[in-house]
Amino acid sequence: MAEHHNHPLDGMFHPRSVAVIGASDKEDNWAAKGFLKPLIDFGFTGGIYPINPQAAPVLGFKAYSRVTEVPEPVDFAIVSVPKGQVFSCIEDCAVKGVKTVCVYAAGFSENGTEQGRDEEARIIDKARAAGMRILGPNCIGIYCPEGHLTFNAETPREAGHVGLISQSGRYSSEFVALCAQRGVRFSKAISYGNGSDINETELLDYLGVDTNTHLIASYMEGVKGGQRFAEVLRRVASIKPVIITKGGFTEAGRRAARSHTASLTGSEKLWRALLQQAGAISANDLEEMSDLAMTFELIPDLKGDRVAVVGAGGGASVLVSDFITRAGFTLPTFGEDIQKQLHQFVPLSGTGVLNPVDFSPQTSGDPVLTPMAVDVVGKLEMVNLVLVHYSLGHFNSTRAGVQQFCNGIIESSRKLNKPVVVALEWLGYPDNAALAFEIKQQWIKAGICVYPSLSRAALCLGKRAGWLGGRG
Amino acid sequence: MAEHHNHPLDGMFHPRSVAVIGASDKEDNWAAKGFLKPLIDFGFTGGIYPINPQAAPVLGFKAYSRVTEVPEPVDFAIVSVPKGQVFSCIEDCAVKGVKTVCVYAAGFSENGTEQGRDEEARIIDKARAAGMRILGPNCIGIYCPEGHLTFNAETPREAGHVGLISQSGRYSSEFVALCAQRGVRFSKAISYGNGSDINETELLDYLGVDTNTHLIASYMEGVKGGQRFAEVLRRVASIKPVIITKGGFTEAGRRAARSHTASLTGSEKLWRALLQQAGAISANDLEEMSDLAMTFELIPDLKGDRVAVVGAGGGASVLVSDFITRAGFTLPTFGEDIQKQLHQFVPLSGTGVLNPVDFSPQTSGDPVLTPMAVDVVGKLEMVNLVLVHYSLGHFNSTRAGVQQFCNGIIESSRKLNKPVVVALEWLGYPDNAALAFEIKQQWIKAGICVYPSLSRAALCLGKRAGWLGGRG
Repeated sequence: MAEHHNHPLDGMFHPRSVAVIGASDKEDNWAAKGFLKPLIDFGFTGGIYPINPQAAPVLGFKAYSRVTEVPEPVDFAIVSVPKGQVFSCIEDCAVKGVKTVCVYAAGFSENGTEQGRDEEARIIDKARAAGMRILGPNCIGIYCPEGHLTFNAETPREAGHVGLISQSGRYSSEFVALCAQRGVRFSKAISYGNGSDINETELLDYLGVDTNTHLIASYMEGVKGGQRFAEVLRRVASIKPVIITKGGFTEAGRRAARSHTASLTGSEKLWRALLQQAGAISANDLEEMSDLAMTFELIPDLKGDRVAVVGAGGGASVLVSDFITRAGFTLPTFGEDIQKQLHQFVPLSGTGVLNPVDFSPQTSGDPVLTPMAVDVVGKLEMVNLVLVHYSLGHFNSTRAGVQQFCNGIIESSRKLNKPVVVALEWLGYPDNAALAFEIKQQWIKAGICVYPSLSRAALCLGKRAGWLGGRG
Repeated sequence: MAEHHNHPLDGMFHPRSVAVIGASDKEDNWAAKGFLKPLIDFGFTGGIYPINPQAAPVLGFKAYSRVTEVPEPVDFAIVSVPKGQVFSCIEDCAVKGVKTVCVYAAGFSENGTEQGRDEEARIIDKARAAGMRILGPNCIGIYCPEGHLTFNAETPREAGHVGLISQSGRYSSEFVALCAQRGVRFSKAISYGNGSDINETELLDYLGVDTNTHLIASYMEGVKGGQRFAEVLRRVASIKPVIITKGGFTEAGRRAARSHTASLTGSEKLWRALLQQAGAISANDLEEMSDLAMTFELIPDLKGDRVAVVGAGGGASVLVSDFITRAGFTLPTFGEDIQKQLHQFVPLSGTGVLNPVDFSPQTSGDPVLTPMAVDVVGKLEMVNLVLVHYSLGHFNSTRAGVQQFCNGIIESSRKLNKPVVVALEWLGYPDNAALAFEIKQQWIKAGICVYPSLSRAALCLGKRAGWLGGRG
């Protein structure tokens, strides 16, 4: 559980005790349902203290009327009460000596009124005077498997190496869920809302030195203190991949960001320039960002830009060639000797063996022939990565055949010291979805990236190949 | 069944009889499995004649040793024999007076040899001399529900108004499958492979005058006779939406296109200019093209560029605002009176009512409140389209709740004389996939476009709004 550094934010992820202020046994009490229960379900082992005026026990836990009544020290408090009651809770936390307070309540600077800004400022002033840190307001706080903290009981208990910084609460939960099915686990995920005290810059700085974090993903709307943020981003992005989905570049997006997190979103042009200069990676949305996180996790090393493609379908072979080339790769043409080797099992007509290897409809998705082609082209020195594409809906394969295909690709991949990835299309039908999900898990477990489309595969691989950090 | 025009290709879609040359009862005989059986299963009502040297009956149908032996006239023949036997089959078809021959066999001009080109030229010469038309070689032919023709027994029997022209066989089948789940049905789909006789230009010209075809989609690699194609495209795209996915713009893509369909792919710059000038619509891949087909089918009329967005999640509200704005729309800010109306049921904190309408996590995905918001903003004169977004995985809704939500959106949509569309995200989990699929079908049946992501919704709506054809 020990971290190998000494950053001021470190303690926040390993509190000895947590108070959930506002948790009661009333039906539909969000503090209990949204925070206390997940914490219990997730197996938080320290002190858990529900706080409500009646000191009525919640989910079997003894409650207190105020946080100041708790007999033990409180390291972390979650404030989930109506906005008008937040300040007095903060005062109590200051008296109690709480180290970090996560303010879930919203309606502060993001509501666009002077009153809202003033109330937020008062919270921060009070906290600073007491040496207490504030996460939020308007956020769901922390997921840290090692610290047994979570904002959602569905999050994996297993820890990993991705750190998330998100201004959106829903997107914090969703990103963890999207990553879970991609084999990606987290060191920490932090929803920080308005970022009135702890903000993106400090969190990025923290995850930059956190030895448990190998990759940083972020959903951001605004940046406070652009100069300092740029410095930190440049430093961190040179040692770890930093992937950022940023919103609020259009007029309507800016308006939404102001009313969501009171963020000033800045200029898109400057942002793009900063990211490029810093070597950070831009994502368009959370699905793309989770595919990118998987890509960086499963492809730690990529020795060159030459890709071999194996699959069935002439149209797909043409489009994937375009996509992969546009993403910055080359598809070397296979020489006659390799073509001859391939033609030992790839039919002569209606196929291709120049790269892509394109099977005919009759042999497409064959559980034996496709892995054989991966063996042949994967071992070539001129190839740095093998991309297999497979369309689950089209080939009407049996379940057993698909499983055999999956196993074959895993076996071929194990023989190679270079990445094998799969674009697994399944045409949108629910039966295919279930099978695709199952096969995808097996492939990912074996270290094989799986993408939902040819274009997504090309996009993610291109961004992976373009990452120049971590080499100096 | 009658077409309201008199185009030379018209008869090809309504043959009175079909010969499947190469069909036998041998195990794994592709002509029987891939062509004869689908034709029977699909309910083709005319004469069906398997042709094999032994004249051995296939699937209960009397067979003949050569097509010349068939006692009745043969309008359409499918040639699925080894390449070396194709020419003699063509000779027989010419003698028999077959009107159109679909050559499935591959290994002609696309194999890159002089011999392949010569053999293809000989077929065409022979056919021209006999007044016979050739589809292919290297194609799977025709799907035409009205003519009871198909290349795949899984295709819907119900006819519709989309025409497909595709150089890829697999993509022909896949596009029909992708469209089926989007409520999109076909007038005709034609896989034309190398296009040695009947090519993209003639097919486009035909679908342009075909009164049963309201929208044309196409997967193309090359264009033969660029000048004439450009003329036809300009004419057709000015009266019907023409959506084209074109491959082969990079060096590797060109190589793949040559070896797939012997296509010369041309310059991307000229292609883009042609499409723009003609008012045709470009798609990146088949999934996007099928979402576009759905969009054009379900949104016949769009009166302006002003969009109202309703959903839950501050991050999603920010990103969708950016996506929708970039796609060419505006999100008008709701005035105070509308905000007040919305705040009668949208909570005050952690929400937004300026446009997007953004519910708090507690009320997100509420089956009653979201439709209520659609009612309020949908009836505004300043709004031309309502985009609802919903994340199935995140809100942990019950099945009944999701169904109620679905019904509510349909009811709200029915009250409005403007499009309501939904971005339905479901986070990749198979249980969600099944439910999402079911709900999607219901919405589409009610005329509501459903997209898998915010960015796809914005992209398709933008291309729909940008289509200027059909207005003169």
